[in-house]
Order: sequence, then C-alpha cells, then structure tokens
Amino acid sequence: MSEVSISPDNETFNIPDERETRKEIIKIQKIIDEEQKKGKIIVVVQGLGFVGAVMAAVIADCEKEGSIPYFVIGIDLPTPASFWKIKKINAGKSPIKSEDPEINPIFTRTVLERNNLIATWASDIYSEADIIIVDINLDVKKTELGKAEEADVNIEPFKAAIRSIGTLIKPGCLLLIETTIPPGTIEYIVKPIIKQCFKERNLNISDENLLIAHSYERVMPGKNYINSIKKIWRTFSAINKKSSNVTREFLSDIIDIKKFPLTELDKPAASELAKILENSYRAMNIAFMYEWTLFAEDIGINLFEIVDSIKVRKGTHDNMMYPGFGVGGYCLTKDTILGNWSSKQIFQRERDLTFSITAINVNDCMPHHTFDLLMRGMNNDIVHKKIAILGASYLNDIDDTRNSPTSVLYDDIVNAGGIPVVHDPIAKIMVQRPDITIKNDLESVINTASALIFVMNHKEYFAYPVEFFMQKIRGGACVIDAFNVLNDEKIKKMKAKNFVVLGVGKGHIKDL
Amino acid sequence: MSEVSISPDNETFNIPDERETRKEIIKIQKIIDEEQKKGKIIVVVQGLGFVGAVMAAVIADCEKEGSIPYFVIGIDLPTPASFWKIKKINAGKSPIKSEDPEINPIFTRTVLERNNLIATWASDIYSEADIIIVDINLDVKKTELGKAEEADVNIEPFKAAIRSIGTLIKPGCLLLIETTIPPGTIEYIVKPIIKQCFKERNLNISDENLLIAHSYERVMPGKNYINSIKKIWRTFSAINKKSSNVTREFLSDIIDIKKFPLTELDKPAASELAKILENSYRAMNIAFMYEWTLFAEDIGINLFEIVDSIKVRKGTHDNMMYPGFGVGGYCLTKDTILGNWSSKQIFQRERDLTFSITAINVNDCMPHHTFDLLMRGMNNDIVHKKIAILGASYLNDIDDTRNSPTSVLYDDIVNAGGIPVVHDPIAKIMVQRPDITIKNDLESVINTASALIFVMNHKEYFAYPVEFFMQKIRGGACVIDAFNVLNDEKIKKMKAKNFVVLGVGKGHIKDL
Repeated sequence: MSEVSISPDNETFNIPDERETRKEIIKIQKIIDEEQKKGKIIVVVQGLGFVGAVMAAVIADCEKEGSIPYFVIGIDLPTPASFWKIKKINAGKSPIKSEDPEINPIFTRTVLERNNLIATWASDIYSEADIIIVDINLDVKKTELGKAEEADVNIEPFKAAIRSIGTLIKPGCLLLIETTIPPGTIEYIVKPIIKQCFKERNLNISDENLLIAHSYERVMPGKNYINSIKKIWRTFSAINKKSSNVTREFLSDIIDIKKFPLTELDKPAASELAKILENSYRAMNIAFMYEWTLFAEDIGINLFEIVDSIKVRKGTHDNMMYPGFGVGGYCLTKDTILGNWSSKQIFQRERDLTFSITAINVNDCMPHHTFDLLMRGMNNDIVHKKIAILGASYLNDIDDTRNSPTSVLYDDIVNAGGIPVVHDPIAKIMVQRPDITIKNDLESVINTASALIFVMNHKEYFAYPVEFFMQKIRGGACVIDAFNVLNDEKIKKMKAKNFVVLGVGKGHIKDL
Repeated sequence: MSEVSISPDNETFNIPDERETRKEIIKIQKIIDEEQKKGKIIVVVQGLGFVGAVMAAVIADCEKEGSIPYFVIGIDLPTPASFWKIKKINAGKSPIKSEDPEINPIFTRTVLERNNLIATWASDIYSEADIIIVDINLDVKKTELGKAEEADVNIEPFKAAIRSIGTLIKPGCLLLIETTIPPGTIEYIVKPIIKQCFKERNLNISDENLLIAHSYERVMPGKNYINSIKKIWRTFSAINKKSSNVTREFLSDIIDIKKFPLTELDKPAASELAKILENSYRAMNIAFMYEWTLFAEDIGINLFEIVDSIKVRKGTHDNMMYPGFGVGGYCLTKDTILGNWSSKQIFQRERDLTFSITAINVNDCMPHHTFDLLMRGMNNDIVHKKIAILGASYLNDIDDTRNSPTSVLYDDIVNAGGIPVVHDPIAKIMVQRPDITIKNDLESVINTASALIFVMNHKEYFAYPVEFFMQKIRGGACVIDAFNVLNDEKIKKMKAKNFVVLGVGKGHIKDL
C-alpha cells in the first residue's frame, strides 16, 4: 500500500510515486509553456503553509491595467504532512481554515475561474520561474522550556531548499525570501549558496546580476487573513540595486501601496532583523505582564481593570497586554531565538539577547502558573481527578494549535497524576502533539470534572450561562479562569454555590 | 546673616524666621476666613514641585457654572531648596520654566487677577482645608547604578508629612494623595497614621467617615504642561464610598471629563499599582531596545530606520522606542523600585519584580555604552582631552535635569582622565549635581574639543550646519551621535574630512 496524506477534514490522498511525478512535470511544463507564450510572469511560491498558500492566491488574484500579469505555481513536498495541501488548492479550496470569508472565494477564483494558480510537488519547474518566493518554515529546536538561550536553529533544511533552488533557478530570476530568517542569512548563507550553484552550473553571474531580496510578511490567520498580506505595511531589502527594483515592482502589484507605502531598508540584515525585532517586542510586552500578574493576585487586585485604565493612553500604552495563560503560535515563540542564533553563529558575538530571550522563557513557562493555581484550588490533590481544559488553540476563535500552551498545562496535570481532558470549539488536532486528543463536545468534557480551567477566551465560552458549567462539573469543583472568561457576576454566582474560583491576574476574586 | 533661597533665575529670598512665620499664619488665616465667608471650598496643595505647583494653579483656574468654587493654598517648606517657589507664585509667576505658553498666564490670572491662589509655608492652615492634595516627592535611594533591586524607598519623610497633616486635618476633609506611592501605602501606611492621629486628638472617626483617596497624575513638563493635568485620562480609587464620591466630584471639576472620563478602580492599591505599572512599562520598552542597539551596531545596520519601519503598526508597535543615550527624569528611573519595595516591605513577598527591575538597571547603565563608543573612537586615549557633551536635560527642549544620564557619562569621562565640558541650550543647573557646570555657550564648549558627543536631540543641535562643528572642534576629532542628531549626509561630510564618527544604534555609519 502506498503512503497517504490526510487533510484536517479527513480527505485521504495517495502520495505520488516516481512515475506520477514524471507525468506531473510534463503536465506542468506544458502549462507553463502556454502561459509564457501569453506573456505571463511565472511566479513560484515555495511552501504552502499559513503564509505561502495565501500569498500564492493573492499574487494570482492580482490585476494590473485590466489584465492578469502573473501565473502562479505553488510548490510543496509530496509528504504525508503536505501533499494534501496541493490537492486542496488544485480543487479550488483553501488548505487553511479561516474566519476570513474571502479565503475560499480567492482560491475558487484563481484556480478554477482564472486558471492562473496551480499547486504541484514538481520542484523541477523552478527553472521556469521569473520570481521564486520562499515561504518555507525555518524552525528552532528548543531543548527545554525555559532555556531558549540553548535552543538551536534547524538551518540545514532551509539551506537544502535554497540549494535545490540554486541548482535550477535561471539567471535573472528574482529570489525573494519571505521566511523569517536570522539576520545575516541572505548575506552569509543564501547568497553564497546561490553563487556556488551558479558556479557549479558554469554560469558566470556577477554580483550585480544576482537577484536576491528579503521581504517579511505580517500574516495573521483570522478574519482579515487575506488583507494581512494585501493591506498592510511591507518592508523589504535587497542585495543590490537590480534586485531592489524588481522587488519593488513586484510588491507594488501585490500590496495596496497607495495606503501602505513600501519601506526599503538598505541591507538584507536590516529587514531580517526588523521582523525578529517586531515579534520579540510583542513577546516581551507579554512577558512583562507576568510578574505583575502574580503581584496583583497576591495583593488582591484585578489586573485586567488596571490594564484597561492604562490602555486609554493611545500611542504610548495602548498595546499593553492583559494577563494571560501563555503564548503559542509560530512566531512569538521562536523569532527571538533566530536573532540570538544569528548573533552567536553568524556574527560570532559573545553577548546574548538576554532580555529578549528571558521574555521567551517567561512566556514558555507561563502555563505552569495556571497549574499552580489549580493545585492551590484543589489543595494539591488532583490524582485520578478529571480536569477539563477549555481551549486548545493559541488564539481565540481560530483553530491554530501550533505551540499551544495548552500542552504545557496538560503535561503538568499528567505529571501530577490528574486526568486532563481538552476541549476546543474549533481546533481539531494538536498539531505537534498527536497524543493529546481535542474534543469538540463541551458537555462530555466538563461532565463530572473536578476542575474546570478556561485557558482561551473563545467567544463560545462567554456565551454559556454560568449555570451550564455549574450543573455539569462536580459540586465544589475548582474553577480557574486563566483568560478572563468569567466576569465578576459569574464568579460571584459560582462562589455562592461553593465552587472554588481562582483567576490569572484576578486577585480580587477572594473578595467577591 | 539669615539663610537664603535662590531661584533658578537667580532671585534671592531670605528664609523667614519664627516671627515672620507667626505673622504669615495670622495673615493666611485672615484670608481663609474671608474666603470661607464667601463660600469657597478651601483646597490645600502640599508640595509645589513639577506637579503640585501646576495642579494648584489648575484648581484655582477652575470655573463652575459661572463662579469660582475653589480657594487654593499651595504649601511648601521654608527651605533654601523650596522657599523661592512660594515667592515666585505669590508674584504671579510660574516657579517652573516650561515651553507651555499658558504656564505664566495661569499664575498671573489666578494669583493676581482672581486672587484665589496663594502660596505659603504656614502649614498650620491644614486645619482649614476641605481638600488636602499631597504632591510631595517620595524618593528612592539607589545604592549603585545597576543595582535597583537593592534600592530603598525613603518612606520616612512621606510618613512624617502625612503625620503632620493628621495632627491638623479636620474630620470631613478629603485627603487626596497624588504622589506616586508603593502599592499598599494608602491602606497600610496613610490610613493607619490618620486614624492614629484622630485617636490622639480624641476624635472618634469611624472608618466610613475617613476620607482618603489616591489619584495619580500624568504630568509632562513641556509644551502641553497644563493640559497634561486637565486634558488627560484620570484614574482614582478611594478607601470607601464617601471618599469616592467626594473625589469624583472634585476631579470632575478639574479634568475635562467629557473628553476624558474618569476611571475608578476598586481599591487604593489598584490605582497605586496602575501608576507604577504604567511607568515600568515605559521603562521596559526603552530597556528592551538596548541589546538590539548593540546588535545593530555590531552588524552594521541603522536601527533608527528599522524602528521607523516597525512603528507604522499603529496600536501594536507604534510605541517602540528608538535607541538612545539613557533615561532620566523623576518617574521612569524610580517607579518600578516603589513597586518592588511594596512587594517586599508591605506585602512580604519573596519574589522581586525581576524583569522590570532589570529594565531599570539596563536604563541606568545605558550611558556607559556611549562612553565605550567614545573610548573606541579615541583609541582609549582621552587623558587630559577636552570632551564636549552636548545635552544635559533628560528630554529634548526642556530644562529638566533630574536624574539626567549626562552625569553618568560625565563621571565615566572624569574617571578615565578626560575633561568633560557640558553644554545645554536651555538647562542651567544639574539639580542633583552642583559640581557639574552646564554652559549655555555652545562655541566655547566645543572649541578645540577632542571629542563631541551629542547626548540629547535638542532642536538647536539640528539647526547648526555640520561645518559649524567641524570648524570648532579639533581636526580628526571623534564625534559620537548618541541620539540620532546627525543625518547620513552630515556624517558623510564629517567622515570625508577625517573626523571619526560613531553612533548609538547606527552601525551603518562605517559604510558611509
């Protein structure tokens, strides 16, 4: 039996064999030949994840002076984890579930109506591209939560991908890297690889004729998924004037530059660092609140109200973060580590980005505090007790579970002998943790639970009357509000019925 | 000869003796008697510093339904440091120099025209007040820069001030604390003192009839000095319902609450913490940039441009700070320490606010980096060399030198054998460092200097053509741009003439 690739909505696809791949190459080559005759610019997007898939659709959706300038080919690997995305796209569907109502129509329009977006695993067609956009992941390897300073960057797969492009890319094709990469990567890793490849191919390309640029995306899955590519500020940088011109022209087609003018920085390292700095800043703003959260709990005050009273100061304090359960997702949990790795490995600096790395550590360990509240609320007795965890995604009202902090709390509970049961109204699978089952049926999850922990502020959780929870969980059970899901009125009702209620950043609960 | 108090503009006043004080009390009492007959509410503002002086004027300036409700008495000490302020105010002049064009008119209007603001040292008249506003300082004692965790809070003078109010305050008078104080101070320090005083005075006042509240200001000296009291969001909290009502009514008269509705928090500790959290956040945002500043310098990029490219993200990243020379002023350098002290001393917590305290330490030590750049630019040879430091205030275009980071750099240079000379276009004295002379004549400061360090972005420094500096300083001198005062064009001109130029956060200079 051949290997299969299963989509999140349980469609199964056979992974293609060599013969099918040869046929695919011939098919795609034929399509490209036709499109080139029509004068289309051939854009290859490498990596059909959260960024690449939507980026490909947005490029294909572009119109310029009444015509459609680009023919877009999305490429991903014929692996169990990725092959289904190729099939989904070619069926005119978004491989990513999103609240954005435009997300399915854009794939239908470009794939089925305009016929200028296809997806394939036939990476040989890099050789036909006028523009190659790299949207593959560059992951970090954390040895242990709380030790981000020891984390390593998994740079080899990225280098291999660049090398495979280098063996095929035609001279004059723009290589545009959108992946978040350690500062210095373009200059000290990508450019040398591409030069070496050209040399091995006996192509004599001078530095001024190499076309390599970096431009980072600010994609946010959610309601404005597509606009988080099109209608948002873009920064880019390029290795030389030619690359800069081509990149500027291309991005001007994709981005609404009238409202969001492009910013060009003078060196690739500058835009590489900008992206990492941007996300490190956000991670640090979250981490900053943690020790104030504990302080507020200890002295009996409600930090949420306090943050609200401060956030009114627009422009200086309105991005202050609320207390929370933890940080997940792909960017904030790792980007600082890319910076620190660059500092040490690319630039041989001895100094860590200590303050920012500490922020990552604080965030990574944050769910332990919710576990501490649980243990306090249950007098350290959770052995064989059913603990309902409400929330599995890392953001409210989306299904994305990448690096979800829920798994940290889950492990804490298991290690202490408790029985965690995880609910999420939208998320179906814990991507990196197949051992954790997510249930979508709330009633069965909370039924007879000895503790109930709200870890995500999904709108569904606000909608239920508090009586719903009180009727299902055990009498006198422990309720932990780790994301300000319960208002004071609800908490009062629960306390009046002798439930033990504690909350992250909500020290005032003891007086309710 | 009697002691004197000298104002910053060199007016000299004799400190009053006991006889004069007795006369003053009689005079003020007579005035109050008249104002009370007119039905005025008597407000006493204790402390005529940056906050109290302007707060007093703003209250006196208040009109309500066509009439003037408040008679305001500003109180400060008859000491060399403070007595001149009393005299200035009574002459209808602002004791604080400010760019705000409204600052002198408001004192003229209230003191000389309306006659409803006077200043005095006769603290006995606390007994006549309907509202007492405490705007005295509460200072911290740092043992060493970089060891904020060991800093102590000078709480005794504050307690003594509260006690002196307690011996005189009449039952029913609202005691409104505006001073930034450690969370818990009202509950665990102020309230017990006032209760004890009433007890000693044989007054039996129940807890519900004690009137104590906390409301913190957000005053910024500068162009909008007065509006930084009147037209800005206000948070308050009170110890009971009565105090809350009186405070709300009073603040509603002073603040433009239509545009800036009041926020009431449920406990004094909440608003006490809010103020400290607000400033700790700001301090942390500054500290965060430091390690990225060093990184950008080491890898040859311009961090200012990068920050500009990120700050476009309104609401999430627009408060990102630029690289800088250091942090001064009264609040950001100490408020976190008040929080940490409260945690340890009032609430006996074992855990420090480590992340936030580290930010204070990073900021306090930041000027050492500019010194490091100087040493690098001068090949470690600054002995007997004249080093011109341009900037003495802690903010651009104001004369405030409280905790100015300039003094840290000054000491570094002296310790290394160099001869620092300090210029500022506005600031006249280094308040805590009388040994440091500030010169206002730029030419004499930079003339024949071996190094020129821009540490503050005063607009005057931007105005000069770069040739002005190049002609005065020594040929080949070292120029350090610690606050982005020089643009690339100016730097190129300097480098073309063989000046050695380095900049904080400006790694790209080496390629110019």
